Amino acid sequence: MTSSGNATYRIGVDLGGTGIKAGIVNGDYQILRKAGCKTDPSRPAGQVIRDMAELIGGLLAEQSLTPADCGGIGVGSPGMIDHHGGVVVFAANLYWENVRLAEELGSYFDLPVRLANDANCAVYGETVAGAAKGCRDVVMLTLGTGIGGGVVCDMKLQEGGSAGGMELGHTLLVMDGEPCTCGRRGCVEAYASATALIRDATRAARAHPESLLAELCRENGEMNGIVPFAAMKRGCPAAKEVVDNYIHYLGEAIVDCVNIWRPQVVLLGGGLSHEGDPLIVPLNEYIRTRCFAEERGAVPEVRAALLGNDAGLVGAALL
Amino acid sequence: MTSSGNATYRIGVDLGGTGIKAGIVNGDYQILRKAGCKTDPSRPAGQVIRDMAELIGGLLAEQSLTPADCGGIGVGSPGMIDHHGGVVVFAANLYWENVRLAEELGSYFDLPVRLANDANCAVYGETVAGAAKGCRDVVMLTLGTGIGGGVVCDMKLQEGGSAGGMELGHTLLVMDGEPCTCGRRGCVEAYASATALIRDATRAARAHPESLLAELCRENGEMNGIVPFAAMKRGCPAAKEVVDNYIHYLGEAIVDCVNIWRPQVVLLGGGLSHEGDPLIVPLNEYIRTRCFAEERGAVPEVRAALLGNDAGLVGAALL
Repeated sequence: MTSSGNATYRIGVDLGGTGIKAGIVNGDYQILRKAGCKTDPSRPAGQVIRDMAELIGGLLAEQSLTPADCGGIGVGSPGMIDHHGGVVVFAANLYWENVRLAEELGSYFDLPVRLANDANCAVYGETVAGAAKGCRDVVMLTLGTGIGGGVVCDMKLQEGGSAGGMELGHTLLVMDGEPCTCGRRGCVEAYASATALIRDATRAARAHPESLLAELCRENGEMNGIVPFAAMKRGCPAAKEVVDNYIHYLGEAIVDCVNIWRPQVVLLGGGLSHEGDPLIVPLNEYIRTRCFAEERGAVPEVRAALLGNDAGLVGAALL
Repeated sequence: MTSSGNATYRIGVDLGGTGIKAGIVNGDYQILRKAGCKTDPSRPAGQVIRDMAELIGGLLAEQSLTPADCGGIGVGSPGMIDHHGGVVVFAANLYWENVRLAEELGSYFDLPVRLANDANCAVYGETVAGAAKGCRDVVMLTLGTGIGGGVVCDMKLQEGGSAGGMELGHTLLVMDGEPCTCGRRGCVEAYASATALIRDATRAARAHPESLLAELCRENGEMNGIVPFAAMKRGCPAAKEVVDNYIHYLGEAIVDCVNIWRPQVVLLGGGLSHEGDPLIVPLNEYIRTRCFAEERGAVPEVRAALLGNDAGLVGAALL
């Protein structure tokens, strides 16, 4: 966390393919006020960054603050980030390549601008102010279309030596297994993302068209990440098998993280984390006996993240 | 790296199941002098530690140095290390459990004593003074009976939040695959250690008793990690398949490390790293097109480690 003088406030921006959110965060890591606008990534990057600056300017004015009251601006961006240079190297859903975001946004304010990957910002926000408050070592997996990974060691955000690090979704689970979006086969993302769960549930529903899993899918119009859990809760064996396999995949990915970082807590974010106990309880049970050196090592607790979309904004503010 | 005053020298100890080596390291990270003795781990831990202290005392006397000339003592130990508390939590080949090594060794000298896992010391030594000199982000895999892992990020040794971290050999390569010594199935160690290579080469020699691989194994009396490379160089297709598979396994493990840490260099240590080009060249080729975001990210060079057994001693000295 950089700081400028004794400034109490910091500004966080959560940049996404659909929307931009900006917020002012106080010394207690609370969001005082936030505002948002559409990203419309079909525009030139400079216009998106100008909108970002206007959001920030508006927030400062509303709170009767000046840049001098703030320690800095942090931006969480999707994609591959050069955190040293403050550059969005590549972000598919923004159509951005080599955008010097920190420099461009910095030209609007006399404040340092830090940039990080959004999943990295999320784990930092949850560590400082969310579900892992009080912990110094935290790993977070965000289970969405893909899998975002973030790691905090001894309260310091880990970002890797150059752009494209901490891609925990792109480490192996099954060598030569299911194809992954990254071009490799068998990545964690290809088994433990919401997309992978939906794929496996769709296959199971096709194999068992008489199952409740298939019925709920037809009722819903399509498969999603909620249907397998809903069908399992109502006793569907096909759904239970899908969820059990998912817990096996995700559990193994979590054990890998424990054997590397030995965090106090492993957080799960993203839509699937809202499934709560039916996901979290068996995962804690799963990893208990499988981490390296078992009873001799400390096995972390798996928890759902708390701050939702605000995690990225708070984490960005504190970069 | 802690320091005490302007002391120019530091003391490193490399503790192993067979021998103890101690050395005095100067400000240029050179070993001025080293000495060693047998570990004999059947003795009480206190006697082993006393021998360690005597080695250090002897080295200081030989160099006409006093503890006050030294910044501190660092010890690299096998096993599961609580680096915060300086405790060997568990080391199978020493028969040690919860040995407060830092405190006990510290009672002999008025110097701070730091303790780390030996694979962690090795990567630190190679980064400061060996094959990764000049790099700030380095991952090292030591390919021996098992696989030791070590990571340096931004020149700082990574050790995890509690004992049993950075066990890169105990992350997954093949879910539900070959059994691993850790109790899990499919770990990197179960596919990419020297032990795994010997297992696979033994299986191939049995399946192809007419092969050169099998012949060299019979000549040698048993299979080892050198035989498959030797047979491959002489054109044996069975040996080539074994080595190609090994490069596939190890290559995938290295891609995982790149996707997490984006180091400038990945080092290979241990006996197998002496195979040189027949191992190193295809590994560099293998990872070139498989890391996340391929041409957009920096792909590190895979190199053999340089310092051999001295890496652990130098790294320990600099803890």
